[in-house]
This record gives sequence, structure tokens and C-alpha cells, in this order.
Amino acid sequence: MDFRHAPRAIDLMARVTAFMDAHIYPNEERFEAEMASAATGDFRYPTFFRDLQQKARAAGLWNLFLPDPAHGMGLSNVEYAPLAEIMGRVYWAPEIFNCNAPDTGNMELLHDYGSEAQKARWLTPLLTAEIRSAYCMTEPAVASSDATNIATSIRRDGDHYVINGRKWWTTNGMHPHLGILIVMGLSNPEAPTHARHSQILVPVETGGVRILRHLPVFGFHEAPAGHVEVVFENVRVPADHLILGEGRGFEIAQGRLGPGRVHHCMRSIGAAERALEAMCRRLLARQAFGRPLCDQSVWEQRIGECRTQIEAARLLVYRTAWLMDEGGNRNARTEIAAIKVAVPRMFQEVVDTAIQAFGGAGVTDDFGLAGLYARARTMRLVDGPDEVHNRTIARLELKRYRTHTSTE
Amino acid sequence: MDFRHAPRAIDLMARVTAFMDAHIYPNEERFEAEMASAATGDFRYPTFFRDLQQKARAAGLWNLFLPDPAHGMGLSNVEYAPLAEIMGRVYWAPEIFNCNAPDTGNMELLHDYGSEAQKARWLTPLLTAEIRSAYCMTEPAVASSDATNIATSIRRDGDHYVINGRKWWTTNGMHPHLGILIVMGLSNPEAPTHARHSQILVPVETGGVRILRHLPVFGFHEAPAGHVEVVFENVRVPADHLILGEGRGFEIAQGRLGPGRVHHCMRSIGAAERALEAMCRRLLARQAFGRPLCDQSVWEQRIGECRTQIEAARLLVYRTAWLMDEGGNRNARTEIAAIKVAVPRMFQEVVDTAIQAFGGAGVTDDFGLAGLYARARTMRLVDGPDEVHNRTIARLELKRYRTHTSTE
Amino acid sequence: MDFRHAPRAIDLMARVTAFMDAHIYPNEERFEAEMASAATGDFRYPTFFRDLQQKARAAGLWNLFLPDPAHGMGLSNVEYAPLAEIMGRVYWAPEIFNCNAPDTGNMELLHDYGSEAQKARWLTPLLTAEIRSAYCMTEPAVASSDATNIATSIRRDGDHYVINGRKWWTTNGMHPHLGILIVMGLSNPEAPTHARHSQILVPVETGGVRILRHLPVFGFHEAPAGHVEVVFENVRVPADHLILGEGRGFEIAQGRLGPGRVHHCMRSIGAAERALEAMCRRLLARQAFGRPLCDQSVWEQRIGECRTQIEAARLLVYRTAWLMDEGGNRNARTEIAAIKVAVPRMFQEVVDTAIQAFGGAGVTDDFGLAGLYARARTMRLVDGPDEVHNRTIARLELKRYRTHTSTE
Amino acid sequence: MDFRHAPRAIDLMARVTAFMDAHIYPNEERFEAEMASAATGDFRYPTFFRDLQQKARAAGLWNLFLPDPAHGMGLSNVEYAPLAEIMGRVYWAPEIFNCNAPDTGNMELLHDYGSEAQKARWLTPLLTAEIRSAYCMTEPAVASSDATNIATSIRRDGDHYVINGRKWWTTNGMHPHLGILIVMGLSNPEAPTHARHSQILVPVETGGVRILRHLPVFGFHEAPAGHVEVVFENVRVPADHLILGEGRGFEIAQGRLGPGRVHHCMRSIGAAERALEAMCRRLLARQAFGRPLCDQSVWEQRIGECRTQIEAARLLVYRTAWLMDEGGNRNARTEIAAIKVAVPRMFQEVVDTAIQAFGGAGVTDDFGLAGLYARARTMRLVDGPDEVHNRTIARLELKRYRTHTSTE
Repeated sequence: MDFRHAPRAIDLMARVTAFMDAHIYPNEERFEAEMASAATGDFRYPTFFRDLQQKARAAGLWNLFLPDPAHGMGLSNVEYAPLAEIMGRVYWAPEIFNCNAPDTGNMELLHDYGSEAQKARWLTPLLTAEIRSAYCMTEPAVASSDATNIATSIRRDGDHYVINGRKWWTTNGMHPHLGILIVMGLSNPEAPTHARHSQILVPVETGGVRILRHLPVFGFHEAPAGHVEVVFENVRVPADHLILGEGRGFEIAQGRLGPGRVHHCMRSIGAAERALEAMCRRLLARQAFGRPLCDQSVWEQRIGECRTQIEAARLLVYRTAWLMDEGGNRNARTEIAAIKVAVPRMFQEVVDTAIQAFGGAGVTDDFGLAGLYARARTMRLVDGPDEVHNRTIARLELKRYRTHTSTE
Repeated sequence: MDFRHAPRAIDLMARVTAFMDAHIYPNEERFEAEMASAATGDFRYPTFFRDLQQKARAAGLWNLFLPDPAHGMGLSNVEYAPLAEIMGRVYWAPEIFNCNAPDTGNMELLHDYGSEAQKARWLTPLLTAEIRSAYCMTEPAVASSDATNIATSIRRDGDHYVINGRKWWTTNGMHPHLGILIVMGLSNPEAPTHARHSQILVPVETGGVRILRHLPVFGFHEAPAGHVEVVFENVRVPADHLILGEGRGFEIAQGRLGPGRVHHCMRSIGAAERALEAMCRRLLARQAFGRPLCDQSVWEQRIGECRTQIEAARLLVYRTAWLMDEGGNRNARTEIAAIKVAVPRMFQEVVDTAIQAFGGAGVTDDFGLAGLYARARTMRLVDGPDEVHNRTIARLELKRYRTHTSTE
Repeated sequence: MDFRHAPRAIDLMARVTAFMDAHIYPNEERFEAEMASAATGDFRYPTFFRDLQQKARAAGLWNLFLPDPAHGMGLSNVEYAPLAEIMGRVYWAPEIFNCNAPDTGNMELLHDYGSEAQKARWLTPLLTAEIRSAYCMTEPAVASSDATNIATSIRRDGDHYVINGRKWWTTNGMHPHLGILIVMGLSNPEAPTHARHSQILVPVETGGVRILRHLPVFGFHEAPAGHVEVVFENVRVPADHLILGEGRGFEIAQGRLGPGRVHHCMRSIGAAERALEAMCRRLLARQAFGRPLCDQSVWEQRIGECRTQIEAARLLVYRTAWLMDEGGNRNARTEIAAIKVAVPRMFQEVVDTAIQAFGGAGVTDDFGLAGLYARARTMRLVDGPDEVHNRTIARLELKRYRTHTSTE
Repeated sequence: MDFRHAPRAIDLMARVTAFMDAHIYPNEERFEAEMASAATGDFRYPTFFRDLQQKARAAGLWNLFLPDPAHGMGLSNVEYAPLAEIMGRVYWAPEIFNCNAPDTGNMELLHDYGSEAQKARWLTPLLTAEIRSAYCMTEPAVASSDATNIATSIRRDGDHYVINGRKWWTTNGMHPHLGILIVMGLSNPEAPTHARHSQILVPVETGGVRILRHLPVFGFHEAPAGHVEVVFENVRVPADHLILGEGRGFEIAQGRLGPGRVHHCMRSIGAAERALEAMCRRLLARQAFGRPLCDQSVWEQRIGECRTQIEAARLLVYRTAWLMDEGGNRNARTEIAAIKVAVPRMFQEVVDTAIQAFGGAGVTDDFGLAGLYARARTMRLVDGPDEVHNRTIARLELKRYRTHTSTE
């Protein structure tokens, strides 16, 4: 057992940290200022993003998430994890390294399941950040926690597929560079439950694709990506836009979700670390009832809890990443589900505690904590709510004992 | 012991409910639409407020909070409590009945502590909702949880007082009708700790009063009132604008806070009830894994917890109100502190649970839950964070045993 | 609304408190010493119980729980509640006042549902504390949380009923004065679900009644009553021992449970108050890291939480009692379920906090906290686990909205 | 990063598991039966312990905890951790492998700090399990969470030291083979705070050592070891019984605590695993309201939480062990404190959940859960309460930022 990172991970951690220090943290205020217009629906691409992306690429810090060495460093999940954590300390930093969700997951999806033509047309410009992509899964009309409920129809019509339905929480939907949407829908309603759905590529400019509205998260706009509700009305795409084959939607979704959850979780850990740091600094700086807040035992308990929770969460994610590296996603089903529940909850609790330490300053924009809170709370719903993941864990746990006689 | 409301409270509950049904709920969408411009800093007065206020006044549902029968029905705290709960079901409803914070507290303050001239000039137009008022307590530069930290200076200069300082979380600061600010400041720095501060009336148009910026709460604007950061730079007001006398700021603050907390808490209970109702309806309407969500035992447990928590919170507030009616605020010091901790926490938990039931729909604006969450979380900081109130309770609790020999 | 106790309740509270001061607290050590032999299975009746019972009776503090004025003061539930709380401060005190479970519930059952002959034979000696009684409901072989699972058979055979089955958690099973058992069993397996069970009276000396073993609770023996596992093997009792009629077991159980839960909850509140008092005294008496523990803010927070939780619990129970007084048990179905969940949980948390304050002294017998903890934890299972009660609340809550259209 | 155990750890895990299957689990009932006499103060040595110990020794599973290869396999902390977990599945199993607390810690202490003579006299028979040892730290009269409060005096008198004081929670105090006590006391009251205390060896037969009483834990006796209160009255031991030197008590205590906490935590994880297994089996075996309990979503959530909490706890402990292996105890100060808080809390929550799943069967002795609960709850106090450890973490965390300017 060895908790040391591999040398190249250690090297990259230092380089990503240096890049953050040099180029990301100094631009945080500027980012906020430029994105303010999103409040009126005006989602702009930050003026300095292209420049920083070029710098990141020049520094060799590009597409780090992709395990295929043909497209970068070929890092394992466990090597990439600490980098995602560092990037996650600033909300918009991952996009500078072309390591932001949902583009990372979509690139992996195209890489693993796309045809050569699909890769050439969409993976290539995604790898250079020329375009952005969206993943259309959740639907407003059904409990999407049970993905078999997904009802958007994908119907074959000659050489085309025709798509009808409504999706929401489509991230990147407001992004000025959005190029392609991957849509999960019901193509074979008569097939066995998990063979009914397919995934298909829909260029954003296709007729019938209508972005209905932007969805704020707790009042935050999360520009430049945003999240949207989108309607597909008789959207026709050529049949070769289907990914992998009819009825293979669940297979693709499963393959996409493992690394995506690890990434989400690691970014959340970075954000939680930042909240804890802000909290400690605040407690050191303020006095009440004749003593610094940091010397009051209630805050000692809370700092202790936060530190321990963060460490536990990080170890859970590392081990999950390692299990995936060793044996693939299926090797880590319990663990992927576990981090999806445990990490967002930790994130929410740490940020909530930090807000309490900041008082009124905690719920406004000044220290970014309210925005972090919105992200943390949302993470408990994104990619399935807690309840679904705990269900997965429980069923795997119970399975161990089902074969035995079940009398005590 | 009798848990029945008084007949006139029951009558008023029915009338306020009828008014809500007829005039408030039907205007919820309209309110949201009209207030959308606040996102760009444009805080407007809702076009239909004056009309509804007139209707409420005509219906005898006006200034219900004021215990003085000279200004209305002369309701006790325990009679008013259920009305505040019903109004609290809609964020903006209390203003229609002229029962909204912070104006209610400010009117009480003027009523109880203002000179005749002060009452004539500011209480009268507040009672008719002609103007709105702000209460400037919290400061960004100090831990205001310990109010003795408050540093804004109020200095006598001939026939005037000169005010210098910075306040924030000044509610109503963006209100188009804001007329008067009540400012707590340090007037006698050499006096004993609790005799150093005073409260003074500052008309909004006084030179040197500068509203620096609007403070969103978790990204929400809470129009038309808003919350602001405000700077006082050599603000001069005539000496007769001082309330009650120099050094009596804490005395006034204590008098103001009791009923204010009861009102806040009752409104929160109304809002929590609405969140629970929304949650139940949602759970009845959705299916996952082959069964309605409402039949899944994890949701049964959560509904049970929410219902019980709400009932407990309501009873705590009623009893607090009753103790205040019986013996004044000092009679209910433990209880006022207790509800200030318990009710917002209940509110936060109920709304958090409802968000989880709604999935993605919970964190956006569609069902109002994210906005409720922001209010609930903020309530744990407003008028002192949980820690200060628990400290109050603990000191009163320990006092019982300090006089005894403290060996077990 | 009026939170004042009725004058006679206030009078009785003072008298019960005075009795506790004079006769109960001074005997706590003696009780522990005399009951120590229970560790070897030797359950004795405390030598001083008869004397104290006589004193209580002479003081007019006898059978206070019984609402029928023919047998005492005819107190309402809400009048009796504070008395149960005071008695609950000492584990064994209720028996001195003939107000201990399960005898109180069994006396009520006989009073409400027993025939005149049944009353004469068993209610009369119970009212004088001559004998004790047991209530045999839970079974080790089935999930008794769903009472329809109860499988002990009650079969008619000529003029007799024949009982076969196994029960456990039969309180009073070790009591030297145990005289009568009330057994719930399956008499009509073909009837509709809730008409299949009956309750029958079984004198302890009947052939085939075999007390298998004593069940300790977390290692505590809870003498003199104890809890046992009991087997019924072809136990024959005359047909007139059946209560009310065949198939009416659920009806009787429902009638019995309401007041019983209120009593349990109030005693728990008294015990929680005592734990909080002990905690405060301990915190006042000890120093760590240069300050008294009571001045450390983490303990301020915990005292605040405990005080608030106790108050909330007490109000919930009072209101439940009042609703039952006003409209019977069915009038308070949600509330009875709510207190059964909320009060034991509060009790458990308060005692757990007190244990933490006491350190090692908390988990041993010296301050009674470990024993209290065992009682508190057990209360979350007695008379149905939390899950069953939350289910009841949820179903009543959801019912409000089922009749409406369930689309949001 | 590598989460695989070393080959020899894997080998030993298999061998310890096989030993447990062959010799420990089959004797669980026998152990309980033999130890029942402890209820009357009769602490016997289990008749089969010597035989099993011989078998363990013959199997090469002896003194596995000791890192010195001179005395066994020389396992690192991270190699030993999974073995401690497996042994921890049965309360008394560690003693069979001579790996039980407090003897392990005491053997390490003697190994690391004892003189050659001390080792020859006491370490040698401890390594063969011929005698048992006790560690006398906590005192009933002071808040021992702050170890500087320890007041037992160790006074030099010629060639002897004289010890006076009272200790409690002295584990092994009832053990029939107890041979030696290690006592922490105040030897140099005028020295700097952390140089005032010393540790000294006191043979159990020394005059003036009086074992006052056995301390049950939540009513459990934890035979054969037991925990006792012990008085030292003018106990005289030769000066060479002092360990390391006067004033070095804290240094010794620090050195002893690191591995001890890792061991305690790993055993707790094994016990928690067993509780989760029991819970799953129970939920599979029971039905309520028409469905198996295991299919009810509330139990899915709880199983998910338990599994995740156990995994997180295990990873925290492994990493702590690894940090200690890499850089000694001081390298893992935050982590040692963190596991001391996090693991017992997890243990307590998992067992509490299992108890709820078992209903009444959970609080009695039948499935061992109540006994596990007592151990778990006690672990939150042993070796310092949670509050002390969180304080340690907080101070280390805050230190990172104290050197920086502390303005945000």
C-alpha cells in the first residue's frame, strides 16, 4: 500500500498549481466582472480565455483527463485526480485546461464509442476547445433518477433519425461555442428495459433544436456554460449520427459516468479545500466576546470535522480511481456510487460551515461561498440523486448475503 | 392549557387565508416577472402592490402586527403569530398587509421609543406604507454577532450628530420608497460596555448617505426591498433625531428584537409548510423503479420528520409569543434565543429535503425552492448567528446551577 | 391559547415534586443496592416500595394516570403529563405512585374494554398495586413493527381458548408480583387483516406459561420489572378471559397505545431534564485547557441545543395530550406518531451529549447516564420503531393531497 | 498510489481469517457462557484461551502488532492494520493472538522506552502472554481530557518512589493474570507543563495497590479484562521502576498513543463490518407491510451510508498507518487525531443503525449489538474525547495560515 502519487503526477501537480497561481487566481475578479452580463441573458465568452488556454496548452497542461496517450499524457484516473482537485479550486479553471465537464465526458464518449467520422467531425474540435458540447439526459417531465423513464423519442425515418422531446439541465447550453449535443432517447420502446434507449449526435444548428430558457442554479448563472432547457421538435439528423448502435444508450451512459464522477468529485474536493481555507483565515481575523473566533472551541470542533471529512472524501475518490485503473468501471461500482453520495455531501457541509463562519458575508457573493454552496447542493442531484446511488450500493451489499441462507 | 386560538385569531386566520387565495397566490407569477429587472439593478415597486394594499386595508387586514389597539386590532403576539405564518407562505405577501420586516420592527421601535415629533414624521407614513424604513446594525468590518463590536461613530457636534461608518445587510435599501434609516452606532466609547451605543434616525436624503451596492443572497435579489451596503460619511442630522437618549442603543435593540424574531420565525414556518406541501405533491406525481416516490419508505421517513419538525417549531414559537404576552421580552429570553436557532434550522432542513424530492427542478427557480433555501440559510445569520443564541441559552441554563455547590 | 397548567395540575406538580424530594431521591442509592442481585437472575421486590406506595396513596398521589374520576382525581391527559415528567426523573419512581408502564396501559385497557368480571378479578388488585401485569405483543420470530405479522395462535376449543406461541420484551415478566398477562394473538386467520387478532387474559400461574429467560437491555436488568421471553404451550384459559370479543385485538391495541405513548414520552422528558442538569453541573465543576468546561463554546452550543430540543419535545407532547383530551386518540394520530419518534430521539441525543460531558464517568453506572441511554435507545423501538410512526405520519400527510389533482 | 496490500499482508490476512473461522467464531457462545460469572464479580480466564493461544502461536500468528522483527514478523503499521480489523470482528479474539489492548501498547512502551532490566522482567512474560498489564492514566477527580490535569503523585523517597492517587478505567484490572501496572503521575510539579509527569512500573502485588471496584460499560463487564478503579496509597517501588526518567511521561504517552489508536480504530472497523453484515442478513430475512425489509428504500439508504462510512474510515486509518510508517507518529498528528474522532463515530452510527434494523433483538444480548454499541460509544472517550482530538486538528490547520497575513 502506497499513498504517494506517481512522480509524473507530483510534477504535474506542481505545474498546475503554478499555473493557477500565475494565471487563474489573478483573474478571478475579472471573470466575475465579465460574466455579470449573464444576469440579463447575455452569456459571453470571457475575453481572456483563449489566451489562457493557449498558455495552458503551451505549458503542456491540456486534455490531461484523457487516458489515451495519443491525445496527451495518458494519465491514469489516479494520476489525474489530484490535478482535477487543484483545478477545481476555481470554478472556471478546468475549461482553461480543456478539462471541464461536460466536455471531458463527451470527449471520452466520442473517443470510446464514436465512429471515425464522428470523431473527425466532433472530437477533433473538442480536443482543441474550438467547440463545446452538451449532454442531454435529464427530462423535466419524468423522474430521471430512474433513467429508464427517459421518454424523448428517437425514431428511424429512412436515412434519418427524428428526435422529439424535451431535456433540461443541459450544461453548456448557453456557451457561445456550443457545437454539438449528445441526446439520450427512446428508440426501441419494445426492447428489454435496458436496450430501449440510444444516444445520438445533434449539431446545435439542426432545425427544430430550440433552447427554451436558461436555468439559474440558486440564482447563479454559471456563465459562460450555463444550463438550459431545450426542446427537440422533429429534429432530423442523418442515421450515421447515432452512436454505437440502436439500444446501446445505457451501455454508453455507464461507460461515460465512471470517470465523470471521479472528476466531479475531485473538483468538489478542491472547492471544499478552498472553503475551509477561507474559513480558517476568517476565524483568525475576527474577534467576538473577547477572543478570536479561532480560539473558540465550537470552531475547533468544526475545523476538525471539516478537515477529516475532506481527507476521507479524497481517499474514497483516490481509491475509486485506482480501482477503475486496475479493473475498469465495473470494478468500482460500489465505490463510484459511494463517492457520488459522500463527496457532494461533504462539500455541502464544509461550505455550509464556512458560510456560518463568515456570517452575512457568507451568503452574498463577496467570498464566493454562496456560489460554492449552490454547486455543492446541485452536485447531490447531478448524475443521479443520492438515493439512486445508495440503492446501487445496497443492492451490491445485499447480494453478498443473498446466496447464503438468510437466517441469522 | 389550551392550544386553541382565540376566536378573533381564528376569524383573522380565515380572512387572511381568503385574501391570500384571492389576491396573493394568483399574482405570484406576475410578481416574479415584474421583479426580474432587479437582476440588472433596477428595483421597481410592483405595479399591483398599491392596489392590493388598499384591498388589504379595506378588508381590515392592516398593521396586524402592532399590539397597540390605537393602530389596529391590538393583537397579542400569540394572536398575530398564525397570521404571520399564513402571510409567510408567499415571500412578498407581508408587505401587502404592511406587516413586513424590517418595517414592522422599525414601527414598533418608533412606537415604543420615539418622541412625539419622531412619530409624527416617520411612524405615521410607515403605518400607511407611504414610506419604507431600514435598520442599520451589522457592519462588514467586525464580527457583528457580538454587537459590542459595532464601530460606526455617532458624535455630537453642537445641535447635530455626525455619523461615520459602514453598514451592510441593510434591508429595504433598494426599496423605491425608502424614507428613513435607523442607525446603531458608537456614541459614548468610554461608557460601560452596554451603554456606549445609540440609535439615531437618518432620512435617506441626508447628505453623506451613500448606498454602495446591492447584496444578493445566494444570487437572489429579494426585490423590491433588497439588501445593501451603505456608507455614512460625515452625515449630519439634528440632535433630536437621536432615539431615547445617548447610550440607550442596546436597550432599544433588545426591545425591538423579541417580536421581530417571533415574526421572522412564524413567516419561516409558513414558508416551510409550503415547501412540504410542494414536496408531497411532487412525490405523489412521480414514479421511479416501478413505484410512486410517495410509496418509497425513505420518503415516508422524510415526510414524517418534516411534519414533526414543523409542528415542534410552531409550538416553540407560540409558547415564546405567549410568554412575551404574559411577561414581556425578558420573560422569554431563553425561548426567543431558542426559536431563533431552531426555526431557521428546521426551515433549512425542510427546504433541503424538498429540493431533493424535486431533483433538478429543486435548484432552479421553477418551484421557488432555491429562493426559499437562500432565505432559510440566511435566517441562521440574521439577527445574530446560531452560536450567539445558543450561548444565551447556555448561560441562562448554567445560571440555575451556579448558585448551588457545583460538585456532583 | 394558554400554556399555563390548570390549577390542580400545578398543585399536583408541587406535591409530586415534594414527594420526590422527600421519598424518592433519598432512596436512589438504596434502590440500586437492593436491585444488584438481578445480575444473577434474582429479581426482588424493593423492601421499601410498599412503604413508599402507602405514603404516596396517603398523600393522594395514587393512580393519577386514570382519567376516570371514579378511581382517583380524573385528570385529563394534559393535566397528567407534567406529573409523568416529574416521576420520570427517577426510573423506578412511577411504580411508587402506581403510575408505571405497562401496568398503567393494562389498567386502562381493562377499564375501557374489560368485562365486569375481568375488572373485578384483575383491575381491582392492579389499582391497589397488589399484583402487576404484562402485555405480550412483540414476537421474536417476526417483524412485529408490522403488527399484522403477529402469529401466536389463540384457538377456541369448547369453553376454552388454547394459546400457543412465543413472545418477548414482556415487561414485568420478572416482577415478583406478576399476576396477569394480556396476550395478543391470531384468532381468526381468515378474517380481514385487521380483524384477525384478539387479546386474551392469561393468569401467570396457568399451565403452559413458561418464562424462558430475562432479557437485559444494553446489559441493564431494569429490576424489579425486567423484560422476558415467554413461551405459551397449549395454554388453556376459559373463554370468558377473551377481551371484548374475537377479532377485536387491533381495536384494543389502538385504544391502549395513545395514552401509553404520552406517558412514555413525558417520563422520557423528565429523564432528559435530569441528564441535562447533571451535564450542566459537571461542566461547571471541571476545567480543561485553562478554563471551566462550561465556558467553552462547544458546550454552550450543546447546552443550547439540548434545552431547545427538550422544550420542543415537551410542547409536542402537551399538544398531543390536549388533542386527545379534546377529541380522543384518533384526533391525534399524527401527533401520537410524531412524539413517539421525536421524544426518544431527543432523549437519546441529550443523554449522549451528557455522556460526552462526563467522559469515562458517563459510560459507567456512577451517574446513571449509561442506564438512561439504554432506556432512551430502547424507546425508539418499543411500541413500534421510528419507521412505522413516520410511515403513519406520511400517509396522513399525503392523504391531504391525494384528493387534489396531483400535478404541480 | 497503490491500494493493494503487500503480499505478506495478504497472506497473513488469509491465515488470520482461516484461524478465526476455525477457532474463534465457533467459540463465541462458549466465551459468553464462561464469562457470565463476571456479572457477580467473578472474572475467570476462559478455559480455552491457553489452547487457542498455543494454536495461534504455532500458526505463526503471534505478536503481529510488534514492528520489531526480533519479536515476530516485523510488520509495518499498514501491514498490521488489516489483521487488526479481522481480529476485531470478535471482541476477545485479539487476546488469542496476543494482540489485545492495552497489552500491545504496553509492550511497545516497554520495548521502546524500558530499560533492559524492565524488559527482562515484564516485556518477556507479556510477549508470551504469561502476564497481562494495565495502563493507569485517567483519573476520576479531574478532566483527564487535558492530561496536564493528572494529579496522582510520584514522589522520590530515597531509593524508592512513593505513589499516591486514584485512577480509573484501568483495563485488565480484573484480569486473572494481571502482573504489572504502568502509572502516569505528577513527579515534578514545578517543571514546565509538559515535563511534570513521569511513568512508573508498579507490580500488581505491591503493597498499597488496591483495586476498588470493577466498572461496567453500559452494564457490560468486558471480561476477562474488565476495567477498574484503583487506589494507590503510599505505594513504594524501587527507583529503577521509573521509565525513561523523571518528567518524561508525556513523551512516553505520545509515543504510545499513535499505534494504539490505529489498532483500536482497525478493530472498530472489523466490528462495524460485522454489524453491517448482521444487519443485511436480518433485513433479508424479515418482511413488513408486504415486502422484505431489504427492499424498502429507507434501508437501502442506510446500507449505502454504512458501507460508505466504513470504507472512508478504513482508508483514513490505512493512510494514517502509512504516514506513521513513513515518518513516525509526528508525521501523522492530524491523521491520528482524525481517525480517533471519525472511526468511533462511524462505529457508533453503524451499530445504532443495525440495532434499529433488529428492533427489540438489537438492544438485548442475542446478536451482540448492544455490547458493540457500548464499545463504540466508549471509544469516543477512550484515549481522549473527540473534543480534544478536533482541537489538535484545528490548531494544526490554523497554523498554516497564522504566518500569513490574516486579512482576507
